[in-house]
Amino acid sequence: MSDATSRYLDDLAVGDNFTSSTYEITADEIIAFASQFDPQPFHTDEIAAQNTFFAGLAASGWHTASLTMKLLVASFPVAHGIVGAGGDIAWPSATRPGDILHVDSTVLKITPSRSKPQGMVQVESLTKNQHGEIRQRLVANQVVPRRDH
Amino acid sequence: MSDATSRYLDDLAVGDNFTSSTYEITADEIIAFASQFDPQPFHTDEIAAQNTFFAGLAASGWHTASLTMKLLVASFPVAHGIVGAGGDIAWPSATRPGDILHVDSTVLKITPSRSKPQGMVQVESLTKNQHGEIRQRLVANQVVPRRDH
Repeated sequence: MSDATSRYLDDLAVGDNFTSSTYEITADEIIAFASQFDPQPFHTDEIAAQNTFFAGLAASGWHTASLTMKLLVASFPVAHGIVGAGGDIAWPSATRPGDILHVDSTVLKITPSRSKPQGMVQVESLTKNQHGEIRQRLVANQVVPRRDH
Repeated sequence: MSDATSRYLDDLAVGDNFTSSTYEITADEIIAFASQFDPQPFHTDEIAAQNTFFAGLAASGWHTASLTMKLLVASFPVAHGIVGAGGDIAWPSATRPGDILHVDSTVLKITPSRSKPQGMVQVESLTKNQHGEIRQRLVANQVVPRRDH
């Protein structure tokens, strides 16, 4: 959010890359998040999770999404903040306890507004663990202001 | 998750509707979630939020998504739990303090697997407040097992 490093629409180009810092997720965090927002045995109970689709404790996809946002806010410096209009999200594999996550983001498309001093920026963000396994693919549309705004 | 009320693939039909219970979101919750996962002034600071895109405190979209999941888990009773492969998400407007949210879900499409005793069920879930304003539209793809699995 710092002006010194924040990008305006004018500063972004298709193909720009941003890599986040890392975040290690624990079983306790997976269980705490899921207990509040996604209370299903494969997200809240290490033993019960063994006999489910996931064959072991797995983070809620919304937990992976929320941690991705945490990493993005610190690594994708857009002026006036990241304002997402929505996007496509997929979880090719589940986030597991001990995963050390980071996010690789790439600008896919920039569409300036015809009427407002802003534009829509489409960004692909891949959330990967320390082994390069993709835990989430998000293609999000973000509103980004022009510099003269 | 109860077998008595859980639906298998065989029990679902295109057009089936499910309505969740309600959940009232507070400013404190918005700030707590965002402080952990989406620390931007329009999500964490009621005063600073006034001069932003949102013109007031707004929940992180991922908070709306997580609360939607909480409501879905209790209202969309799928056998063996809701296993989401991903989907499209959009936030036509931001969730605000005092919003009383509920989720209206409709089965859009059912695609049985040719090789496994399961299928992919596409469900649209609209998250609305007490005034009928749509805070989130999610079209999610869920893996649902057949009854004989």
